Amino acid sequence: MAETTIKDIARQCGVGVSTVSRAINNHPDINPATREMVMRVIEETGFIPNNSARNLKRTDAKCIAVLVKGITNPFFSSMIQIIEEETQRDRYALVLRHVEADEDEVDVALELEKEKRLRGIVFLGGRFTHSEEKINKLKVPIVFSTIGIDISDWIGRAEFSNIAVDDRLESCKMTEYLLGLGHRRIAFITERPEEAIGRRRIGGYREAHADCGIAVDEGLICYVQDELDHFSMENGYVTAKKLLESGKKATAIYAASDLLAIGACRAVLEAGLRIPEDISVAGYDGIALGEYYNPKLTTIRQPAEEMAKRTIRLLLDVIAGRQEHQQIVFPAELVERESTGPCPAGLADGLR
Amino acid sequence: MAETTIKDIARQCGVGVSTVSRAINNHPDINPATREMVMRVIEETGFIPNNSARNLKRTDAKCIAVLVKGITNPFFSSMIQIIEEETQRDRYALVLRHVEADEDEVDVALELEKEKRLRGIVFLGGRFTHSEEKINKLKVPIVFSTIGIDISDWIGRAEFSNIAVDDRLESCKMTEYLLGLGHRRIAFITERPEEAIGRRRIGGYREAHADCGIAVDEGLICYVQDELDHFSMENGYVTAKKLLESGKKATAIYAASDLLAIGACRAVLEAGLRIPEDISVAGYDGIALGEYYNPKLTTIRQPAEEMAKRTIRLLLDVIAGRQEHQQIVFPAELVERESTGPCPAGLADGLR
Repeated sequence: MAETTIKDIARQCGVGVSTVSRAINNHPDINPATREMVMRVIEETGFIPNNSARNLKRTDAKCIAVLVKGITNPFFSSMIQIIEEETQRDRYALVLRHVEADEDEVDVALELEKEKRLRGIVFLGGRFTHSEEKINKLKVPIVFSTIGIDISDWIGRAEFSNIAVDDRLESCKMTEYLLGLGHRRIAFITERPEEAIGRRRIGGYREAHADCGIAVDEGLICYVQDELDHFSMENGYVTAKKLLESGKKATAIYAASDLLAIGACRAVLEAGLRIPEDISVAGYDGIALGEYYNPKLTTIRQPAEEMAKRTIRLLLDVIAGRQEHQQIVFPAELVERESTGPCPAGLADGLR
Repeated sequence: MAETTIKDIARQCGVGVSTVSRAINNHPDINPATREMVMRVIEETGFIPNNSARNLKRTDAKCIAVLVKGITNPFFSSMIQIIEEETQRDRYALVLRHVEADEDEVDVALELEKEKRLRGIVFLGGRFTHSEEKINKLKVPIVFSTIGIDISDWIGRAEFSNIAVDDRLESCKMTEYLLGLGHRRIAFITERPEEAIGRRRIGGYREAHADCGIAVDEGLICYVQDELDHFSMENGYVTAKKLLESGKKATAIYAASDLLAIGACRAVLEAGLRIPEDISVAGYDGIALGEYYNPKLTTIRQPAEEMAKRTIRLLLDVIAGRQEHQQIVFPAELVERESTGPCPAGLADGLR
């Protein structure tokens, strides 16, 4: 079937091309009945008009790229959905690109930028180890969202925006909560401090201990397996299993993501231990799954929906020149559910 | 910073433009040391050559679109990852587009097709209610993957490919398994029969009952809420809660997706019932989460990885003219885990 043109539509309707054009563009100067007839024919033929208001709709539109590390993490899928809705409302097309763990997201972005209509970039998740020089090669506005950037390093920089929670503060909050339940041997499943997110969450864990005058047992900081996705259930399972088999006693496990925590729960249950009666387990992120898991998961809930909305609104505002770049810190919330409880009697002081 | 050109590279290296071009294209007619020097400068400047082998890499490449309904379902995210890997290996760019529940995926595809470099389309998930006429408007090769198409309707069609499990058969298998455990009142949480996937999975459920000479209690077929994502944890929770509060007795709940089953588990646990001692729960899909959930979930495991690989290989083969369109049915596997057990004593016959 040859492609339908505006002339075909005009012929089929028995009107001129300019009438079809007026109908498409919702021009006031056209009889409503004629407009309706034309639009019906357009609908039936599947004709997609060029050079009209409708071609702003999707693929002919200027576009925004979202580069995400960790696309299988439900924390990001919920954010992506919101970003999609907002970009569509603003008639931008969205290019969603999953970045592999070993890929450099800025390299990927530099290539995407060759797309002439690319107007802005969102980096979602992942680490942040790029030089300022390299970032500056990207010429379109950028928003980093929920990325491990040390916020203090970047305050005042005008070249890009950054949206995140204060990972150090929130991690400190969770550790304080567990210490407050009497736990003195809190294992922490985390990325290594060489990763920005790992560094800041470990920082918070240490800070809480220091504030309470409790020494950290370095053996309880359990690094995830590098060869597996750093925040996955599988990695949580493997890492917790190793801890439990090591003979190191812990009365609580705090994991740097909810998926890691769920994997850890599986290892705890398989070891024949009860949660939270024998051992407490806490996560970080606040994904929906935490409410459905058995037991319901105690966590740090990042306001993913608000952060996603702010991320894309800010990018669109910067693109349109309505706003300067901004560094925005969102508060997170400690949500206490079923997976954490008081330190088992006798263990708190006994193991201190 | 102005954009770096091939001339800038040549000037910086002190060689001619043709030498840079030879280096980029890995031409045999260039001194290896010179080539290395040129490539190092290219690397340092971040220059991305046009009109060279490298521009096949990503964004300048011909592209494939993946349209997915239900992007927050981990069943699809694992498939998407594999599709991305395979397309990159073949030097195609990938456009990933999430289709809203109320959007028509073929309309979206028709617009994407206006992108000149679009060479093929994968439809992932969702329903299939489009007329053949409409599908035929799409001019690039199409593979439908894990879509609710009645396979018998489509055998022999040459216009597109279809990859799926036999939903009716697999649903029958799960129902037979539960009947074999002595359950006679098996609630089924599912989409309505107006949806293709719902129709086929309900068909299997009825078939298994008929084969055993057991009448289906229509009150035990529980339709998910239309206004929520049809296969989500939330919908499973809400629908199971309604069932449990209705007073209708069921000794097993079979849900048409693992996420629905996990939501149902939450409702069962909240009602103070044990799984599987008081009530068995089974899912469908075989997502990784089912292994981590507590209890581990009995399910029908679709071979998602193999299906994803086959989907994209088939599309690439059809595009390249190496293969005709095909209709491929994959076998799924019943995986028995902790969430199902024998019908509680006294209830099997008592309620029959």
